[in-house]
Amino acid sequence: MTAPSSPAGGAITRVHVPLPGREYDILIGRGVAATAGTLVAERLKPARAALVTDENVAAAHAPAVADALEAAGIAVTRIVVPPGEATKSYGRFAEVCDGILAGRIERRDVVVALGGGVVGDLAGFAAASVRRGSAFVQIPTTLLAQVDSSVGGKTGINSPHGKNLVGAFHQPSLVIADTALLDTLPVREMRAGYAEVVKYGLIDQPGFFAWCESNWRGIFAGGPERDEAVAVSCRAKAAIVVRDEREDGDRALLNLGHTFAHALERITGYDGARLVHGEAVAIGLALAFRFSARLGLGPGQDASRVAGHLASVGLPTRLADVPGGAGDADALLDAMFQDKKVSRGALTFILARGIGQSFIARGIDAGDVRAFLADELAAGG
Amino acid sequence: MTAPSSPAGGAITRVHVPLPGREYDILIGRGVAATAGTLVAERLKPARAALVTDENVAAAHAPAVADALEAAGIAVTRIVVPPGEATKSYGRFAEVCDGILAGRIERRDVVVALGGGVVGDLAGFAAASVRRGSAFVQIPTTLLAQVDSSVGGKTGINSPHGKNLVGAFHQPSLVIADTALLDTLPVREMRAGYAEVVKYGLIDQPGFFAWCESNWRGIFAGGPERDEAVAVSCRAKAAIVVRDEREDGDRALLNLGHTFAHALERITGYDGARLVHGEAVAIGLALAFRFSARLGLGPGQDASRVAGHLASVGLPTRLADVPGGAGDADALLDAMFQDKKVSRGALTFILARGIGQSFIARGIDAGDVRAFLADELAAGG
Repeated sequence: MTAPSSPAGGAITRVHVPLPGREYDILIGRGVAATAGTLVAERLKPARAALVTDENVAAAHAPAVADALEAAGIAVTRIVVPPGEATKSYGRFAEVCDGILAGRIERRDVVVALGGGVVGDLAGFAAASVRRGSAFVQIPTTLLAQVDSSVGGKTGINSPHGKNLVGAFHQPSLVIADTALLDTLPVREMRAGYAEVVKYGLIDQPGFFAWCESNWRGIFAGGPERDEAVAVSCRAKAAIVVRDEREDGDRALLNLGHTFAHALERITGYDGARLVHGEAVAIGLALAFRFSARLGLGPGQDASRVAGHLASVGLPTRLADVPGGAGDADALLDAMFQDKKVSRGALTFILARGIGQSFIARGIDAGDVRAFLADELAAGG
Repeated sequence: MTAPSSPAGGAITRVHVPLPGREYDILIGRGVAATAGTLVAERLKPARAALVTDENVAAAHAPAVADALEAAGIAVTRIVVPPGEATKSYGRFAEVCDGILAGRIERRDVVVALGGGVVGDLAGFAAASVRRGSAFVQIPTTLLAQVDSSVGGKTGINSPHGKNLVGAFHQPSLVIADTALLDTLPVREMRAGYAEVVKYGLIDQPGFFAWCESNWRGIFAGGPERDEAVAVSCRAKAAIVVRDEREDGDRALLNLGHTFAHALERITGYDGARLVHGEAVAIGLALAFRFSARLGLGPGQDASRVAGHLASVGLPTRLADVPGGAGDADALLDAMFQDKKVSRGALTFILARGIGQSFIARGIDAGDVRAFLADELAAGG
């Protein structure tokens, strides 16, 4: 394919997601969001758009995107929600659905999510539900959303019973990943998203992990390495999603590190001041490799190398890194067993035989997990 | 196929819905609900079930169904909601989702909706959403639900902006239509469901309409005609749904009479004491045929025959039949234009060239509709 230019002059990378009947493109590049109006108008031909953002994004990026949509002849209804995980609630779901309906957005119009994972998950579930399915465009504004949550169609909200327990599989019609939007992202959020980038290398691309070890500074600094990392990550996720859209099989590999991570998030009450998702994932990745080594599945030096790289970019890698503490082994285990990925009481982990050699390990013994966690905690770890 | 027997000794009719990847059976017969436990256990092998009912059904039918499920080794969590359309709300949606989660129903377990359309729509949307999709079984307890809402996968709740505006397409894994459950149904609800039965004849089966004219008493009395009518209706709906699951085309034919009906329901504030859905549909069917005749599309005697048959079973057929009045032509027209089936401001109706000859009529002029409604109102009609 030709590489068209963005208004800022950079190349645009197209990652195609060939889901039968619902194929879509992810367009990646510096400045590509400025062309959102033309892109959406040409591809979806909507008369109206509901632009869903949070209060932070509304101030920083929404005016430019709204202007771009309106310049392309699309009438825009703005829906602004508070930032933060608490926004993924039943109440905000109702509010966004009603906002879309008040904007008279019809099934052939479009819901545009402009923001991080919270906005994408919430707006996506609303788009899936209003009139039982409206077209949906993601313009992710965080690294985490660009490499993970905006791709693959998982949308949803939280329940008092746990995170992301209520939602829909609803694929976007288009994802516009403008890597220049990350220039103003706080470094803590960049690091959190970077944990998911590293994850793709750890799952099945050892070469990409090695590339990350050499090139992470360029990703953080906004060099061409950033576009490359987003593109490789989106390609990796898209390939898995196309193989297994509804997580009946391989898609579970994307949960590498996440069983531990979800337990840590639950233990810390989803308090982003203590631990954000990507930080929990970083600890979870390190734990998954150390647990794999302890079970004799993979070499200990790979576990050290993973933790070493995550720590070098400033990410936490040990239970002792959780501000306020990670509880005790039983509390952690209980938090894991509540996880929605538990099937019939048997614990399933994604473990690794080495960097880039992850696999789905079923029927892991809870006693082994408890002993591992207790030792990690005792080691200050 | 062989016709297995129900415990009550009657034959069970199987209607297969061959949606690719999500095919399912509708089992119709007197007493078939008593075998719900075995049927669900054999086909879905769940460990647990959430049994969603309303307060009326909970008293009449839930104990027998819960016993049947438990006798088959399925642990049952009961979720009871108030009866009535107001239950299809965001708040009850949250309540049912959380009830399913509290019951630790996993993706391979099952949500069972035992009730009329309200329970089926609400529980179905919750089943679609919890863990982004749980298995779902319908045991409809009204004629309307047995011939219409339990088949086809439309689920949802109401918004302040209108009815059924928020939901999901989520096909059941099994529908158990026990026609004996209708023996205790109030005659007004039987009639309301019967309007939808008649609709299938009017859409494309003139022979079935004629059969209804001769056999409706048996349907109401619970003779074998009832099972036959439910089976023909389910087959008709299934055939259309398989052709067009997501209502991009032919499925709109199922809305015969419904653009008028939804407007009447809106005008009467969805007050079931004044007008229930099936009654609004009966008036809508009669109006659709009279409007078709007025536009010169079909013969006036067919319109008379339709209204005559609906009136003979005790259904309303005229705007004057709406208790408290149907408003004026402008109010009705405005209520129609708010309808979610309006596309880009152009009015789409399902009209008919005769009994069994319905078609999708696009771009119908609002002025023609207003004049028709004004004349109907002026004629006391």
